[in-house]
Amino acid sequence: MSAGKQIRLNAFNMNCVGHINHGLWTHPRDRSADYNTLDYWIEQAKLLERGLFDGLFIADIIGVYDIYGGGIDVTAREAVQLPVNEPTLLVPAMAAATQHLGFGVTVNVHNEAPYTFARRLSTLDHLTRGRIGWNIVTGYLDSAHRGQSGGSLPAHDRRYDYAEEYLDVLYKLWEGSWDDGAVQRDRAARAFADPSRIRPVSHRGEFFEVEAYHLSEPSIQRTPVLYQAGASGRGRAFAGRHAECVFIAARDRAAAREASRAIRAEAVKAGRAPDDVKIFVGVAVIPGRSRAEAEEKRAEYLRHASPEAGLAHFSASTGIDFARFGLDEPIPYGQSNAIQSATAAAARRHLTKRDLLGELALGGRYSVLAGDAVAIADELEAWIEEGEIDGFNLSRIVVPESFADFIDIVIPELQDRGIYKTAYADGSLRAKLFGQGDRLPSRHAAHAVRAGSSPLARVV
Amino acid sequence: MSAGKQIRLNAFNMNCVGHINHGLWTHPRDRSADYNTLDYWIEQAKLLERGLFDGLFIADIIGVYDIYGGGIDVTAREAVQLPVNEPTLLVPAMAAATQHLGFGVTVNVHNEAPYTFARRLSTLDHLTRGRIGWNIVTGYLDSAHRGQSGGSLPAHDRRYDYAEEYLDVLYKLWEGSWDDGAVQRDRAARAFADPSRIRPVSHRGEFFEVEAYHLSEPSIQRTPVLYQAGASGRGRAFAGRHAECVFIAARDRAAAREASRAIRAEAVKAGRAPDDVKIFVGVAVIPGRSRAEAEEKRAEYLRHASPEAGLAHFSASTGIDFARFGLDEPIPYGQSNAIQSATAAAARRHLTKRDLLGELALGGRYSVLAGDAVAIADELEAWIEEGEIDGFNLSRIVVPESFADFIDIVIPELQDRGIYKTAYADGSLRAKLFGQGDRLPSRHAAHAVRAGSSPLARVV
Repeated sequence: MSAGKQIRLNAFNMNCVGHINHGLWTHPRDRSADYNTLDYWIEQAKLLERGLFDGLFIADIIGVYDIYGGGIDVTAREAVQLPVNEPTLLVPAMAAATQHLGFGVTVNVHNEAPYTFARRLSTLDHLTRGRIGWNIVTGYLDSAHRGQSGGSLPAHDRRYDYAEEYLDVLYKLWEGSWDDGAVQRDRAARAFADPSRIRPVSHRGEFFEVEAYHLSEPSIQRTPVLYQAGASGRGRAFAGRHAECVFIAARDRAAAREASRAIRAEAVKAGRAPDDVKIFVGVAVIPGRSRAEAEEKRAEYLRHASPEAGLAHFSASTGIDFARFGLDEPIPYGQSNAIQSATAAAARRHLTKRDLLGELALGGRYSVLAGDAVAIADELEAWIEEGEIDGFNLSRIVVPESFADFIDIVIPELQDRGIYKTAYADGSLRAKLFGQGDRLPSRHAAHAVRAGSSPLARVV
Repeated sequence: MSAGKQIRLNAFNMNCVGHINHGLWTHPRDRSADYNTLDYWIEQAKLLERGLFDGLFIADIIGVYDIYGGGIDVTAREAVQLPVNEPTLLVPAMAAATQHLGFGVTVNVHNEAPYTFARRLSTLDHLTRGRIGWNIVTGYLDSAHRGQSGGSLPAHDRRYDYAEEYLDVLYKLWEGSWDDGAVQRDRAARAFADPSRIRPVSHRGEFFEVEAYHLSEPSIQRTPVLYQAGASGRGRAFAGRHAECVFIAARDRAAAREASRAIRAEAVKAGRAPDDVKIFVGVAVIPGRSRAEAEEKRAEYLRHASPEAGLAHFSASTGIDFARFGLDEPIPYGQSNAIQSATAAAARRHLTKRDLLGELALGGRYSVLAGDAVAIADELEAWIEEGEIDGFNLSRIVVPESFADFIDIVIPELQDRGIYKTAYADGSLRAKLFGQGDRLPSRHAAHAVRAGSSPLARVV
């Protein structure tokens, strides 16, 4: 790794039982079935802060996985992201128990109007003192739209048009409505805020018409740290314009490098620096004090994993009902780009359900690194260098054990190599990640939107 | 008071600086300007639990008070519910610091689709272990609708049509989608949930079309405790059908009795018992160790209050720009029923701005009780008896002092009289308030909606 470069690390979790590695909720040491209690999350946040994790990235899904077998039988029995509770409500309790840990919350742009969503995220940025990030998602499940409106899902690129305009409205509210210094809190002068430094934003677009003051005073970061995970061409262009952290699900280092270069090229096209985007790969890690201990642990985990539950999840991701196929029947993988990229090896011959179940032995499709500290540190370094990425979203196999093992076994080795921090930096999540202050840099798209809106809005 | 009857008590606050009694943020002991920190709320929750408060009722508003003087000058300078942060995000941090305190959160039915809102409240009910209530509001500010859609506010009764259907969808999701016992958490049998006991709800109405499974497993209360505060005829009919706790803003005991009887009559019409609805009146209290100490405190508070800020708030409530009137100019009070009922005395002659500013001496329009413990307890008892109400929403003048004084000075007197609990009852917020279990009673409208939807939904 290049001198001085530090591995960035998020824990990856979700307000549900089965997240990535399915079936492990049945493991005797797994606590994921306690997802609906505050203690589970508070203890986890404290653990992650002990490990100096940059953040806890909380995934979310609106809708259910009802493709596999044409229903939710496996989904319900193995709790494959169902039930799934709301993610943002976890943050305040964890923030109260920590000082530095960041929080990336996933929220779909179709959930609510930008006017009230802007306030929701500003509130989180206030309560966490600048530790909030937002993972922008546009949704892909038809079942979500049947819940929200009864209609069917808009086409993929339309969802990005909507997301682009949604963000423009948010930038106006977060960056343009209240000046720095508008809030004075001056008791003697009876001046809480200076009305001449607060203005309504004005927006008339295809999807939104807004004439409104932002309801929240400026928070430390104003705009939360922006995360995104879209892998399509349109998704990468969106990331290049908006995202500060991009989460990719690359199967190998070459795929990571291809994605990383494409995303950074899009950032440059959007007038930003290549390093304005931090790129994270999802991995699952099984660390042992020795290689033998790690392999023993993996074997034990395998006994509790559910490849079929992983397949039910993958059916929802691809839209293909794999229950319809016999074990060795060829799956016409031309049906879906998702399968081709996901199973590069299998795609070179006839893909079968047996192949998929083999890949899903641990219940999920992320790369699994098992070994002692040295082996895992070697692997992570190789991913960073060859994959041209910045860090990892560490998924859990058994929780909190997967995180605790990583902290106790792997992190000391990374620290010894000088590639992982030994203390948190000061400041907001953005300041910690980029070392350039609490606010979005001036070359980010938010600033053009803000500047464009303000003079107009002043005369409303 | 009738034997055994206990006064119910909520603290009344809002995620903002100036709530009801405006201008007091300038008082040297007031901490309301810290509303955007977790410590402020956690300390307050612990204080209220020490005082055995039933709940913290958190108000909210979407929109700004821009009627007075045609703008936000006074609103911003005195922080009249602007800035205002999101309320639900306060709850998890306070829940983690307490065991029994309930939380009533105000959320407008226009904020998001019932499908995702149902999950938000279920999540809160899980995280608080059954301590959540929801104050249902339909909104009244045109500025909110300019923020959310650019359109103007729908007519009053239309908003209630929308709210009725919104609740029907919620009841189906909360009460009808997952059976009791659907979730088994059986590791040995690899059965997290039984898919045959989970079903999508089906709803096709005027405003919503929903075909969806509820995303959350059943929480302790399923439906949160339902609060409401509508004062119109339509609002009272809505309360009679849905509300378990109704918050009224009566100026005197006779007005409280009239409202109480009308609401309970609506409950009976809806097939419920009169006592199925608990009625709370908003009051501000200034307790002293002696009458002289209370009067001294009142005088001190008056020096920091802002009657004009109270008037800016009242302008927004009534839609009348009181800034346009001279101090002694008659205000045509026929313009607004709100003024007539609010200022019964003044309405018998020419109402002037001077009258209103006099009523708003402490910055707000709630009844203010100042005195020693005996005097205040006498007053509260008289309100309960003559007003035929169940309890109070205690607003803050100086925070947390107003709550702390009430706990230290008034509550021991109420306990000595046997009209205030000396320990919390066990169980959920609903169980604590009604003593009849965690769930809505079978005579509540939710059950008919649920029963009606389920067989249909099963075949979807």
